[in-house]
Amino acid sequence: MTIYDEGLDRSAANFQPMTPISYLQRAALTFPDHPAVIHGKQRHSYAQLWSDCCRLASALTRRGIGRGDTVSVMLSNTPPMIHAHFGVPMANGAVLHSINTRSDPASIAFQLDHAESRILIVDREFSETAAKALANAKAAPLVIDFDDSEYPEDAPHPKGEPIGSLDYAAFLTEGDPDFAPGKPQDEWDAIALNYTSGTTGNPKGVVCHHRGAALMAMNSAIHAGLGKHPVYLWTLPMFHCNGWCFTWAVPVQAGTHVCLRWVRADAIYDAIADHGVTHLSGAPIVMSTLLNAPEHQKRSFSRTVAFNTAAAPPPETVLHAMANAGFDVTHVYGLTETYGPAVVNEWNDAWNKLPADQRATRKARQGVRYLSLDDLSVMDPETMQPVPADGQTLGEVMFRGNAVMKGYLKNPAATADAFAGGWFHSGDLAVMHPDGYIQLKDRSKDIIISGGENISSIEVEEQLYRHPDVMLCAVVAMPSEKWGESPCAFVELREGRDLTESDLIAHCRSGLAGFKCPARVVFGPLPKTSTGKIQKFALRAQAADL
Amino acid sequence: MTIYDEGLDRSAANFQPMTPISYLQRAALTFPDHPAVIHGKQRHSYAQLWSDCCRLASALTRRGIGRGDTVSVMLSNTPPMIHAHFGVPMANGAVLHSINTRSDPASIAFQLDHAESRILIVDREFSETAAKALANAKAAPLVIDFDDSEYPEDAPHPKGEPIGSLDYAAFLTEGDPDFAPGKPQDEWDAIALNYTSGTTGNPKGVVCHHRGAALMAMNSAIHAGLGKHPVYLWTLPMFHCNGWCFTWAVPVQAGTHVCLRWVRADAIYDAIADHGVTHLSGAPIVMSTLLNAPEHQKRSFSRTVAFNTAAAPPPETVLHAMANAGFDVTHVYGLTETYGPAVVNEWNDAWNKLPADQRATRKARQGVRYLSLDDLSVMDPETMQPVPADGQTLGEVMFRGNAVMKGYLKNPAATADAFAGGWFHSGDLAVMHPDGYIQLKDRSKDIIISGGENISSIEVEEQLYRHPDVMLCAVVAMPSEKWGESPCAFVELREGRDLTESDLIAHCRSGLAGFKCPARVVFGPLPKTSTGKIQKFALRAQAADL
Repeated sequence: MTIYDEGLDRSAANFQPMTPISYLQRAALTFPDHPAVIHGKQRHSYAQLWSDCCRLASALTRRGIGRGDTVSVMLSNTPPMIHAHFGVPMANGAVLHSINTRSDPASIAFQLDHAESRILIVDREFSETAAKALANAKAAPLVIDFDDSEYPEDAPHPKGEPIGSLDYAAFLTEGDPDFAPGKPQDEWDAIALNYTSGTTGNPKGVVCHHRGAALMAMNSAIHAGLGKHPVYLWTLPMFHCNGWCFTWAVPVQAGTHVCLRWVRADAIYDAIADHGVTHLSGAPIVMSTLLNAPEHQKRSFSRTVAFNTAAAPPPETVLHAMANAGFDVTHVYGLTETYGPAVVNEWNDAWNKLPADQRATRKARQGVRYLSLDDLSVMDPETMQPVPADGQTLGEVMFRGNAVMKGYLKNPAATADAFAGGWFHSGDLAVMHPDGYIQLKDRSKDIIISGGENISSIEVEEQLYRHPDVMLCAVVAMPSEKWGESPCAFVELREGRDLTESDLIAHCRSGLAGFKCPARVVFGPLPKTSTGKIQKFALRAQAADL
Repeated sequence: MTIYDEGLDRSAANFQPMTPISYLQRAALTFPDHPAVIHGKQRHSYAQLWSDCCRLASALTRRGIGRGDTVSVMLSNTPPMIHAHFGVPMANGAVLHSINTRSDPASIAFQLDHAESRILIVDREFSETAAKALANAKAAPLVIDFDDSEYPEDAPHPKGEPIGSLDYAAFLTEGDPDFAPGKPQDEWDAIALNYTSGTTGNPKGVVCHHRGAALMAMNSAIHAGLGKHPVYLWTLPMFHCNGWCFTWAVPVQAGTHVCLRWVRADAIYDAIADHGVTHLSGAPIVMSTLLNAPEHQKRSFSRTVAFNTAAAPPPETVLHAMANAGFDVTHVYGLTETYGPAVVNEWNDAWNKLPADQRATRKARQGVRYLSLDDLSVMDPETMQPVPADGQTLGEVMFRGNAVMKGYLKNPAATADAFAGGWFHSGDLAVMHPDGYIQLKDRSKDIIISGGENISSIEVEEQLYRHPDVMLCAVVAMPSEKWGESPCAFVELREGRDLTESDLIAHCRSGLAGFKCPARVVFGPLPKTSTGKIQKFALRAQAADL
């Protein structure tokens, strides 16, 4: 005990649980007339967004929802998805479970059961899948349909039939717009649940808390350079790690959410040009969509737009083309378990003077920790000792601190494994550079072991991307009688390009050790997740049958 | 218990005590070569600043300093003061006690004793005062002199003689630059102690914690609009609420601290022009200093510089002149008990279209809460009910949340009073406007009660400031046989201006109710604190003798 420990306790005056709800409330108080949401022809002010969130919270509580109850949503990037990110936790501490809208019915059914879901709000785009999931699930949530009046007439898939017992708009009118929001009892209380798309076994439910969400919202605002009144375009699905916390970060600076149901070049360019978009995020596929759009869909805009990308290092050609197209690309990295990105490629202005290929090499690194990630390391997972910072020695990326999840829902064994030794084990393999920046080399399971030598699939992919005809590629292990495993490449070519397997293997030999070059090259479209990640497990299965 | 409460506990992997130390460590890792400190001819990189802070922490621990020990400093805005803000808490949780360098020896002696100070680092500018304080104190801290090699040769007061047993530079060399910093055991642990300059009785020791400092550093970065690599000029004393948390906020964005020993127009203009200053802060006196500088001291600069001001609402003429001089003024408000500013006049772009006087009226309001201040209210302190948001009903400003101090050191009674009813009672009187912005009307003790009517001294001062010849003014209560109290005005005129008492009273009558007009006007320089606040208690004493 010191003199600073006596008579200086927590009280209501000087300690309140942190929560991002507070940021929306502040924005609505301060800028009630500022546009909070743009959705098609709709404009919602901050006053309206706040009252809609209060209505949702109130309607939920009137249906008996409260602390620790799961509210599931299967929604596109539309206003109800923004409401849900605030209104669900405002229902006295209910927990938002955002479902990846491209999940299959069996996975959704598992999630609804595992999360003990009480409510399911579902966009009519997904009626059919949701109905199948509900038929397979033991859980019997109250189902609410969202019928989007901005749903395009010429949509490739028309709206499905309602499957619920009431409509979202009607549900909102059940709620009181002056509802006093329930703040969390404890900042450690859960705010959101997101299932990881495990490639084997059942998905794991990542639980985030108010403390982390409140901190990472401020972190995202700072690291993404959100100034006052940013205009954020939703090319990233909000169900993906709660939109990398941007759902909660945009109100930090009283910004505008621009909704977007589908990632299409024309809609993105229109939003940028018409609404003054300042920031957007997405996997590399979003950059490809922008760059490869037909010229008549492109629109000019006067300011540089910030683009945050993750999932794969942006190749040099893409960076160059993005800069020419008016985008400033920042490379970030994280996992669902770290609230989305928690590592950022902090750019050093001195690197602007480097030649383009060296700039791209720097940009390919994942980088350094966010402010509220207390520690980031690359370790030998056996010894839990950091690898040498030599840019060469492979180790596992480890995270520690307030940007790490609460744990996996109802899965203490997986939680204990993930947190073994006091660090979150990411499962990603990386090197630590001498300057403290980390660079991913592979997921553990993506390493190809050929004749006893480790081959980084990313290294092979980087070489493939250096070929101007390659638009997208992925390298996985293929069983080999002689070597155990060999690299197998799957490649999408740019439109109108023609290339043979032997051309590409020769290109690889020009830049890689022989044993690292693909034994086979398969051309054709690559299978992708809804967030644009290439589904390597599907390719691995395909490679096994070659 | 819900499903979200089981098996999801805090662990080293997902919970770490928040601390601003982490921000400096991150900046040093990421931008080791970026200038962290400019002091005269000196340039310190982030790598050097980090290693200096490690040295200080290490040297302190080698002298037996640790958790809960008080390290006092009496320093100007110089590099050791920046070291101290990190290096002291890095000494395994020691607490930084920054002394107002203009305090009198008796007050400093009281503080050293009350804080049980173990170390005193003192700039040789203050040798004489510090020696007197030490002679009066029971505490016998180890005294370390800072001999500033950048101390101006032509200084108005020459350096004093060393009074300590060793020199700061030598002390630093005792420390290990690779010292592993001790992070706080708990984020509730104290980080800093600042005594309020009470006008009566002994000063109270405001204790801040790591949690609040970490949050308010991010808040300050966001609300002041610190972009990447800001250049922050230290016109505000760092001893004043730890420089409104900018000591800790500048590394959040890997910015540059520009040191400044004295607030002088030529040095400020030189720094802005030569170092690319982006942000500075200060009381209105700093604005007057800038605006009233002789033309040959002014320098031109190409960008708009952000100026954060507090202590008194900026008058219309000052705002206009500051805009013309290239400064964008933001009005903030807070107390030592709230880590400095915790309320900001969030500017609504629509107000730019208002006439100048109405813009100034909007700018004069203190505003809305910071992100991490959970609640701000104006209440009747008897009933603890919010006053009507009518812009008229007076109440006391109340703060609640993570931006409020831990309490007063060794003063549980004062802490309990300050936190009565679960809110921090500021002692400031204000109104709540219909749009949720607060506006100060007076400190409780600054209200003048004349014939039973309350007169806001601020209202009378505002009217005085509308006179173009008035540079600085203050209105206090003067005893009156007839009315109980009457307003008495103290006024500094602009250079070369001439004005009589009756002129100014007539000017007041043109805009105020008769009973609110000053009964007397006294011309001459006003007594100010080191932070530029007018010392109303001194004026009150003077008025009592008129």
